[in-house]
Amino acid sequence: MTRSLTIALDGMGGDHGPATVIGGAEVASVRHPAVRFLIFGDEAKMRPVLEQHPRVAAVSEIVHTDVSIAMDDKPSQALRRGRKTSSMWLAIDAVKTGRAQAAVSAGNTGALMAMSKVILKTMPHVERPALAALWPTMRGESVVLDVGATIAPEAFQLVQFAVMGEAYARVILGVERPTVGLLNIGEEEVKGTEQVKEAAQMLREAKLPISFYGFVEGDDLGKGTVDVIVTDGFTGNIALKTAEGTARQVADYLRAAINRSWVSKLGYVLAQGAFRILAKKLDPRSSNGALFLGLNGLVVKSHGGTDALGFASAIDVAVDVASADLVKKIVVDMEALSGFEAAAGRARNQNNNEETEAALS
Amino acid sequence: MTRSLTIALDGMGGDHGPATVIGGAEVASVRHPAVRFLIFGDEAKMRPVLEQHPRVAAVSEIVHTDVSIAMDDKPSQALRRGRKTSSMWLAIDAVKTGRAQAAVSAGNTGALMAMSKVILKTMPHVERPALAALWPTMRGESVVLDVGATIAPEAFQLVQFAVMGEAYARVILGVERPTVGLLNIGEEEVKGTEQVKEAAQMLREAKLPISFYGFVEGDDLGKGTVDVIVTDGFTGNIALKTAEGTARQVADYLRAAINRSWVSKLGYVLAQGAFRILAKKLDPRSSNGALFLGLNGLVVKSHGGTDALGFASAIDVAVDVASADLVKKIVVDMEALSGFEAAAGRARNQNNNEETEAALS
Repeated sequence: MTRSLTIALDGMGGDHGPATVIGGAEVASVRHPAVRFLIFGDEAKMRPVLEQHPRVAAVSEIVHTDVSIAMDDKPSQALRRGRKTSSMWLAIDAVKTGRAQAAVSAGNTGALMAMSKVILKTMPHVERPALAALWPTMRGESVVLDVGATIAPEAFQLVQFAVMGEAYARVILGVERPTVGLLNIGEEEVKGTEQVKEAAQMLREAKLPISFYGFVEGDDLGKGTVDVIVTDGFTGNIALKTAEGTARQVADYLRAAINRSWVSKLGYVLAQGAFRILAKKLDPRSSNGALFLGLNGLVVKSHGGTDALGFASAIDVAVDVASADLVKKIVVDMEALSGFEAAAGRARNQNNNEETEAALS
Repeated sequence: MTRSLTIALDGMGGDHGPATVIGGAEVASVRHPAVRFLIFGDEAKMRPVLEQHPRVAAVSEIVHTDVSIAMDDKPSQALRRGRKTSSMWLAIDAVKTGRAQAAVSAGNTGALMAMSKVILKTMPHVERPALAALWPTMRGESVVLDVGATIAPEAFQLVQFAVMGEAYARVILGVERPTVGLLNIGEEEVKGTEQVKEAAQMLREAKLPISFYGFVEGDDLGKGTVDVIVTDGFTGNIALKTAEGTARQVADYLRAAINRSWVSKLGYVLAQGAFRILAKKLDPRSSNGALFLGLNGLVVKSHGGTDALGFASAIDVAVDVASADLVKKIVVDMEALSGFEAAAGRARNQNNNEETEAALS
């Protein structure tokens, strides 16, 4: 049911470059046969991989560039070196010019955020962008934002994250009326930072068409208490990496415990099916793909270290949000929110397009 | 090797009150036969429990009070209602008067922090207190602070947390020269909040006798990359609860996967020994007991929902820090740090004893 879409791919991004990107496109192609790809990168490196994936070759256009952004380039370096020429820049630019409806890159996160902001600019009314991740929960999946784009958002910016995250959850989780919670250190109104308390008050008082649950705590992330969890980019990034680390830690404990005796190992062999299910549940590849929200265009960040299967999940996210025309949905929601803002008499902050440009170029 | 110590216990704190507290003292008594207890609470409720634990009865003095703090009292309420009369207040006050060398409570965290600050006051030179938790890692245990006492510390306050956490790690982990990391969203110097960047610079430039590792990320917590992880109370509390939630989530996935087939269940039976080891590794009771650092006295917070075994772990923490005379060690370290501070020309912030008193009473 996807309309005819084109997804731009940064062919050189990530730890494994074209092999992951084109291999991922192959997997995604099976699921979305009508989707076309526009792949930017070093043709000499991409051609041999493409020949092994005729299905991708048949639906792709290759655009050659020999500039690519290194995984450890600083955002400012990346912008200097890769402006208008790098595979990452060109993939994002294809979204701006309308040649593609979304871009996916497994490249350097800081560079991708910086370039996306410079090329696509933040939407009308949006002050700061957010990176929204999919979080596996006991009930399914939740959307968590911000996980690293905006380190210290103001209260009203958190409210904007709530609105954008809710729109995203409607599309990606297929929930009609997602519940939204603010991450805090307790459920009582008196707890937390000034920003979080003020944001909660705004979300309660504004008559937004959002199902605001109130505060949630760190353990509500895994429980799936709400569909959308809103937090600042510092806390969100640390919570995400803490959860990933803890899951790995428990899996390691389990492995070590089983290897201590041959009876346990035998038990492991018998329970193999269960361990396969567990491994699948814990597989970070299935929730790969963080969406950059608040820009005039859709950009998805894939984990740099993922493989073809993981990259295909990131393409899935891009296809879902592009087919739903998520940017247009958010523009409408932001328009409504700005009405509330004006009514509340708040002087609107500048969005930071100029700042970004100045700081990074 | 413990000197003759007395530990004050809030007999009424926690979800299960005297049963957990006195049961925990029983377990701790076996490990620390020379330790005495001063138990505050409702004598009518405590006596029957004490009769079942003659070992505890033999080394304890009971001080009756019929006032106790409810688990859902707000800190300000608790201070109004429980000042000078509640079991929690009296346990902390016993530390102030020198009748006990440390206090342990499983009661309401907010109330315990507020009362501890009012009664014991922050140490000379310390601007804000911190709650330090023990974090199970792949290598053993680390100290993580702050997990909820100071929501938005300044850079220099984070440096103070580093110094206090290091002193605590020397005692509780038995490491001679613990490594200290600052929790951030990347290892590069340009990343993170202003407070974190500034604190890192101070820790690098100050010639403190601390082994400063630099920035660590969320997944370094479980890896045990460093012995002491320093962060603000907001982020630390959320990271702690996120990790607890994730561990539970993985255990639940595992249980569900195993219950899907009888072959898996049979495998489980064979691998039982391994699962017992895993359960022990994941048992939150073994790392129970968060120490309140930066006050003129030692107060340990136990999880409210724990049982006797968990409460005994919190008593262990109290015994360890009291025998090592941790307060004195930190006073010396803070004195040294204040020399650096003066050299750096920083105007010292008031510590917030008066504020606390004013805000809460």
